[in-house]
Amino acid sequence: MSRKIKMGMVGGGRGAFIGQVHRIAAALDGQIELVCGAFSSSPEKSRLSGKDLFLPDDRVYGSFEEMITKEKKRPEGERMDFISIVTPNHMHFAPAKMALENGFHVVCDKPLCFNLEEAYALREIYSKTDLVFALTHNYTAYPMVKEARHIIQSGQLGKIRKLVTAYPQGWLSTFLEESEQKQASWRTDPRKSGIAGAMGDIGTHAENLAEYISGLQIEELCADISTFVEGRRLDDDGNVLIRYNNGARGILYASQISAGEENGLSVKVYGEKGGLEWHQMHPNTLELKWLDKPKELIRTGVGQLSESTQAHTRLPAGHPEGYLEAFANIYRNFAKCIQAKLEGVEADPVYKDFPGIEDGIRGMEFIYKVIESGKSDTKWIKM
Amino acid sequence: MSRKIKMGMVGGGRGAFIGQVHRIAAALDGQIELVCGAFSSSPEKSRLSGKDLFLPDDRVYGSFEEMITKEKKRPEGERMDFISIVTPNHMHFAPAKMALENGFHVVCDKPLCFNLEEAYALREIYSKTDLVFALTHNYTAYPMVKEARHIIQSGQLGKIRKLVTAYPQGWLSTFLEESEQKQASWRTDPRKSGIAGAMGDIGTHAENLAEYISGLQIEELCADISTFVEGRRLDDDGNVLIRYNNGARGILYASQISAGEENGLSVKVYGEKGGLEWHQMHPNTLELKWLDKPKELIRTGVGQLSESTQAHTRLPAGHPEGYLEAFANIYRNFAKCIQAKLEGVEADPVYKDFPGIEDGIRGMEFIYKVIESGKSDTKWIKM
Amino acid sequence: MSRKIKMGMVGGGRGAFIGQVHRIAAALDGQIELVCGAFSSSPEKSRLSGKDLFLPDDRVYGSFEEMITKEKKRPEGERMDFISIVTPNHMHFAPAKMALENGFHVVCDKPLCFNLEEAYALREIYSKTDLVFALTHNYTAYPMVKEARHIIQSGQLGKIRKLVTAYPQGWLSTFLEESEQKQASWRTDPRKSGIAGAMGDIGTHAENLAEYISGLQIEELCADISTFVEGRRLDDDGNVLIRYNNGARGILYASQISAGEENGLSVKVYGEKGGLEWHQMHPNTLELKWLDKPKELIRTGVGQLSESTQAHTRLPAGHPEGYLEAFANIYRNFAKCIQAKLEGVEADPVYKDFPGIEDGIRGMEFIYKVIESGKSDTKWIKM
Amino acid sequence: MSRKIKMGMVGGGRGAFIGQVHRIAAALDGQIELVCGAFSSSPEKSRLSGKDLFLPDDRVYGSFEEMITKEKKRPEGERMDFISIVTPNHMHFAPAKMALENGFHVVCDKPLCFNLEEAYALREIYSKTDLVFALTHNYTAYPMVKEARHIIQSGQLGKIRKLVTAYPQGWLSTFLEESEQKQASWRTDPRKSGIAGAMGDIGTHAENLAEYISGLQIEELCADISTFVEGRRLDDDGNVLIRYNNGARGILYASQISAGEENGLSVKVYGEKGGLEWHQMHPNTLELKWLDKPKELIRTGVGQLSESTQAHTRLPAGHPEGYLEAFANIYRNFAKCIQAKLEGVEADPVYKDFPGIEDGIRGMEFIYKVIESGKSDTKWIKM
Repeated sequence: MSRKIKMGMVGGGRGAFIGQVHRIAAALDGQIELVCGAFSSSPEKSRLSGKDLFLPDDRVYGSFEEMITKEKKRPEGERMDFISIVTPNHMHFAPAKMALENGFHVVCDKPLCFNLEEAYALREIYSKTDLVFALTHNYTAYPMVKEARHIIQSGQLGKIRKLVTAYPQGWLSTFLEESEQKQASWRTDPRKSGIAGAMGDIGTHAENLAEYISGLQIEELCADISTFVEGRRLDDDGNVLIRYNNGARGILYASQISAGEENGLSVKVYGEKGGLEWHQMHPNTLELKWLDKPKELIRTGVGQLSESTQAHTRLPAGHPEGYLEAFANIYRNFAKCIQAKLEGVEADPVYKDFPGIEDGIRGMEFIYKVIESGKSDTKWIKM
Repeated sequence: MSRKIKMGMVGGGRGAFIGQVHRIAAALDGQIELVCGAFSSSPEKSRLSGKDLFLPDDRVYGSFEEMITKEKKRPEGERMDFISIVTPNHMHFAPAKMALENGFHVVCDKPLCFNLEEAYALREIYSKTDLVFALTHNYTAYPMVKEARHIIQSGQLGKIRKLVTAYPQGWLSTFLEESEQKQASWRTDPRKSGIAGAMGDIGTHAENLAEYISGLQIEELCADISTFVEGRRLDDDGNVLIRYNNGARGILYASQISAGEENGLSVKVYGEKGGLEWHQMHPNTLELKWLDKPKELIRTGVGQLSESTQAHTRLPAGHPEGYLEAFANIYRNFAKCIQAKLEGVEADPVYKDFPGIEDGIRGMEFIYKVIESGKSDTKWIKM
Repeated sequence: MSRKIKMGMVGGGRGAFIGQVHRIAAALDGQIELVCGAFSSSPEKSRLSGKDLFLPDDRVYGSFEEMITKEKKRPEGERMDFISIVTPNHMHFAPAKMALENGFHVVCDKPLCFNLEEAYALREIYSKTDLVFALTHNYTAYPMVKEARHIIQSGQLGKIRKLVTAYPQGWLSTFLEESEQKQASWRTDPRKSGIAGAMGDIGTHAENLAEYISGLQIEELCADISTFVEGRRLDDDGNVLIRYNNGARGILYASQISAGEENGLSVKVYGEKGGLEWHQMHPNTLELKWLDKPKELIRTGVGQLSESTQAHTRLPAGHPEGYLEAFANIYRNFAKCIQAKLEGVEADPVYKDFPGIEDGIRGMEFIYKVIESGKSDTKWIKM
Repeated sequence: MSRKIKMGMVGGGRGAFIGQVHRIAAALDGQIELVCGAFSSSPEKSRLSGKDLFLPDDRVYGSFEEMITKEKKRPEGERMDFISIVTPNHMHFAPAKMALENGFHVVCDKPLCFNLEEAYALREIYSKTDLVFALTHNYTAYPMVKEARHIIQSGQLGKIRKLVTAYPQGWLSTFLEESEQKQASWRTDPRKSGIAGAMGDIGTHAENLAEYISGLQIEELCADISTFVEGRRLDDDGNVLIRYNNGARGILYASQISAGEENGLSVKVYGEKGGLEWHQMHPNTLELKWLDKPKELIRTGVGQLSESTQAHTRLPAGHPEGYLEAFANIYRNFAKCIQAKLEGVEADPVYKDFPGIEDGIRGMEFIYKVIESGKSDTKWIKM
């Protein structure tokens, strides 16, 4: 029987940014309904958040442990099917572990965990289940990223030689740590964020994008990691030379002190026959460049696009889709995979295309290697 | 007591484009839930559509009459609060009328009605109720349109002298009428669309944008209306000279044979002291131009923006919002106004900012005057 | 025998803008040398200007009459071959007439003359000579305009249906007439400029571009002509509906009160199969749009371009050429045609491609019809 | 006495690209005239090139030695004042040396010399003269680069933290070495180009731009240098991490295998208070970004610009200037400095702003350090 998939949320109470993003993304395609939540470590704050979201009082919990325990007692079809973890990094592992161990599917914000040990442990736990796990590396869920991956995989650019992946932001150019900026405070706190600041928060998005779009893997890297803002305890800028496993070379940088930049994730890929370029801030356009003919602007909804691109687009040409729609693509695919499980069928391959545990492990390893390289005099560090 | 506002849908069955847009827009902010629908004039198709949407069988109806009649019998709080009308133009009036007469709020797709008589009749009916009516001129719900209106109203550009409003599309460059393209067939059919093709479908959006953003009203117009595609029964291109009520002059054009254009709605406004420019396909940017200093790019989420702009933005800088988010702004505002009624309070002014019956009347009058002018040798036609 | 072609200049003394442009354009390709000039109606100012330009005293004249008379007495090969007229409109006819009557070729700034009578008279005079006449409608000399014309002529876009030609500037948004702005004062003075302001100064460039690029001719027009700035004696804004001789429809507007616009000449052409778009401020790119495939960005120096495009480009891809290079294309072609005459051969067809007397007549007729229409209640005025 | 400055050219015969660029740049502002040349190592080819340029036979020489020797015998005012060296790198030193030793000023294409020894030797020779030497790092002669430098120097961005300097080209993506492409063959030949390919040809432009615009100096670097095209003998791609002398960090990359890129030199600079961005392919715009207010687009000819910016701009707003105009800025400044010497006065400081010997030394050292780093396992190499 087909029905909406039921979500319980961990974190995302009043004032949180990413919790609201997850809720919109989950609701957008009408496949998922929010049925319960443990929105805050403060029970009162959790209760108020639940009220904002029109949830009944008995589905709003004071902790994820309580939520998992109590929801498990409800009948299947009424209880939540999965939890969505939208807490800071140091609070990913525990709810993910408990959910998986109690038969709940999991959506988890990135990076996967607080540290690499947790990440490996989570993989171990997950490997023993038949559950669905999604990691919200949302930027690779844009339709034009799917199209770019398709173009590269189909060999149109020839062998890939070079990637330039950039993720400049400017919002941490000043010392926001002690301001009211909740986003800033935990991201710059090594007890909550882990060993990396910018490289963990957004560097992993860049790494995920570079590897996903190219189908390549980072083999070696050489990083220059900096903290520019006085008093800051984690990195706020990093520049990395990269060697990929096919011989391609690359640059990858992530920065939160690039003053005046908003959220400028972009990637340029160059092959023997052509190149492509994509900017997250103009996500519905993919520039395709050739050695000897005019540049083409591939656009969502225009002309022949790959099956995957079409499956991740909702609107006709010229009706811009954005960040929330890409985010929703992960939730929609995740829900479709659970739906397939409910129906006892195999999910459509286009729906299986979302980041999971392995992407999370890869991201955590990237964090560790980049930070190691930043402290090292050795030029190349193997990944 | 606060609760989600309940929506019943008229039209929008399998294969429809705009119905799905309305459902996403309604769901996006978690204020509205779809509880019932009469999705198609074919009861079987309606039933299947309801299934796709996970609705219980007894809330899927064979006609809007049945839906309104039966929903009315359900208790308040369970029954739908409003209907959303997403049918072709000739089927707007009847469900809107019946809904208003039975105490249901209404969201209606644009243009308001099939003809001007219906429009005036609907205004008459509406005027006797205390209900909420929203017309989905979605393009004026973008945050940067709010910002532009704010800038103009606050006098920063000085007295407005000139507007250039353009709405080029290319999708009707060939005779799609007899293809499977459902969107094309009714829009080009005078029995379903009304007296205008392109000028009704998208010309009214341009008119709504020009008047909303500038705060001015079209006073006189001079139109050149064409049908380029052989066999087409309605206009597919129109160029209009405009005189506004403050003495400003303008150009407005709408076209569905501008080959290669996607959905290029844009507006440029010039005042005595400066100008601004906005493009729907890059909606998060507003260009602000000055006589003697650098052009500024106003961006959602960056710097000081008007209260209204902020209230219609969900994400931080550099996280692109698009068409669905703007569309959702209308539904969110509409829901907040109903919510206020439920709570017996006055709605926040920022939520009252959405198009209603009067905008619909204005659009219908524009259609009639533009088509009249296109057939006339008189240069200026008063509006 | 091949040698540099020798130029004498009328106007363009100290402080003039366009005179310096003409001198750079003439010098750029090494085909022309400035040998003499009557740079100002003030002999002293003319003398000083000649000094700035390193001219010998005896080649600097107090009037064009003196220059033509005295240069004619010098031996061929030493004397000037042509005059370049860079004075305000009311001083085009007299030197052009005298030059042609004395066997000198002519380059003349646009518009052709002060009024239509002069224009017809000049055509009559010219028709009796075997001289070369160039009118500096410089914007159609850009390589990408050549490419666009080639694409349209070769039928790639199918039958042309629509043109949108825009020429917004903002520099006359305030009353500069009595400022030191020399450019402003004569352009807004009906005794120097003629019957039109903006429509003559830049509207004719737009008209020339639309007709040149499309190969079509304006057949009828309907104009709304305004003067926004108080005290101004000529139009500063005009919006025009156009019907072309093949049935295509169009909009053309020119404005000098579009606050914040620099020099935004652009054209969009739509045919049955595709469209194209060109912006003078980004002259090395031509956007090519299709019904069912990605937009292409044609660029100077990239891939296969027409013979004419290549002949009007000097640099490899990515080395931007601009306004002066386009201007120089007219001078280069003009010089090559004179060179061919000196050698007694036929000039290469690519060099014959520059605006001449007939384009000037067309521009003057456009001015007259547009101004007539602006004052008329008749909707369509034949051209 | 003021007169045009007289140029003799070394190299730049028929078929050469950069020779023609130098000639146009020299002619553009009417300050310089070409009086003689040794255009090719083949006397016949030199003679034909001279004919193309309308030079008298006795001013066209078979070698630079002959040219310098014979010109020196002509009287001052008739003989050339300077030589312009536009030959491949291995032929820069000898003519530069001989010219300086014989009292002629020098313009030399970049990089300064074939190797570092020559560069140091040339500096030594030059230091003993009172002559003017210009190195054509043309990209730093754009007006918006002057403006950027001014903005940074005036402290508007605060202390500089990061620079991203990119120079991607794609034209050497395939093995052009043995094609007719004259530009490709010498640039990829270590006997003509020196120890570096892409890093010498365009990497030095990037280095010059980064240091000029920021006022900083590269202190340490870490490079990954590659040759992607089979059979190629020099590098065609290089990615470099950089540490500047004020603590700023940077990325610099240059590539000639970035398929589909034209000539994409760009720079992004981030300071504590704001950032800026400039792209050579859109040279008349400078993006200025702020922490908490809208991005500004600084444009040539708009609003208040620095004195230097204005002195390097010829046209009003919206009249695009390009590569040749920037190149001409160097020649104009160089000529003005010689002119000042002729007049026995001090040149205006704005004219003294062009690259010279020291910039050339810096570029050569950069080449050597980058190539050294590419071969080294040591992470950081001091410059």
